[in-house]
Amino acid sequence: MADEALFQFLHNEVIQYIYKSTEHGEMENGRCITKLENMGFRVGLGLIERFTKDTARFKDELDVMKFICKDFWTSVFKKQIDNLRTNHQGIYVLQDNKFRLLTQLSAGKQYLEHAPKYLAFTCGLVRGGLSNLGVKSIVTAEVSVMPACKFQVMIQKM
Amino acid sequence: MADEALFQFLHNEVIQYIYKSTEHGEMENGRCITKLENMGFRVGLGLIERFTKDTARFKDELDVMKFICKDFWTSVFKKQIDNLRTNHQGIYVLQDNKFRLLTQLSAGKQYLEHAPKYLAFTCGLVRGGLSNLGVKSIVTAEVSVMPACKFQVMIQKM
Repeated sequence: MADEALFQFLHNEVIQYIYKSTEHGEMENGRCITKLENMGFRVGLGLIERFTKDTARFKDELDVMKFICKDFWTSVFKKQIDNLRTNHQGIYVLQDNKFRLLTQLSAGKQYLEHAPKYLAFTCGLVRGGLSNLGVKSIVTAEVSVMPACKFQVMIQKM
Repeated sequence: MADEALFQFLHNEVIQYIYKSTEHGEMENGRCITKLENMGFRVGLGLIERFTKDTARFKDELDVMKFICKDFWTSVFKKQIDNLRTNHQGIYVLQDNKFRLLTQLSAGKQYLEHAPKYLAFTCGLVRGGLSNLGVKSIVTAEVSVMPACKFQVMIQKM
């Protein structure tokens, strides 16, 4: 629980800092999201390198996705993804019914508009992780009812 | 090991971001250090709240310092402080012979000048933790040989 707390608190600080440091500038919400996403991307790149040091080679794309949903998610968020769906054409939807970085926000609709900034880092994290496993993707997130959320991964074919 | 990695990578990103976002501004090294320290302070405040939820009341100042050196340090850095010294007049020196956030830098003297930015967050973390336990302090850090480092805590009497 302690480790989680450390990550959560630091994550919150990062969000606040990025938003505050751009308050008086020309940058709007979108650029903050991009910065958080890029930060997540680089962290994801690094993490996957450590996590897969002693892992067997992955069979295919689906095998990679399963690794992200189980091992990767567990080490970062202390639980697995609850549901993984795919259309078998390069789109994957990862559903987390109790996403760790949203549980600190009220479960009502009151803060729904703030959800994107709590998801951007994680979108980047997934994109970075996949990227280091040779899978190029675009990752977006959506929330309908807090703290559940869905990450959509669109694989970019080379 | 995974949790540590997550914290370390995010910590690095934060340092880089803060330094980069102030590159083209009027802010110099000192202000970046202050920002990192303040960030650490707020994280320390929050962490101590979680960690001490089920802890017995502390006897005295020394008891608080021991808690920081053992429990707090272990949850954040996965090891205890190696040596705690005090002059019994409000100055404590916490020595970590292998400080986690410095082990990623080369052990030589080459990067010694970069050490302060890797220590600022932790100085704040300690100050914030102590503050939430009712001990007001000033915390500074010094490195002579990497990755060993000393944190000096000066208690501010009210």
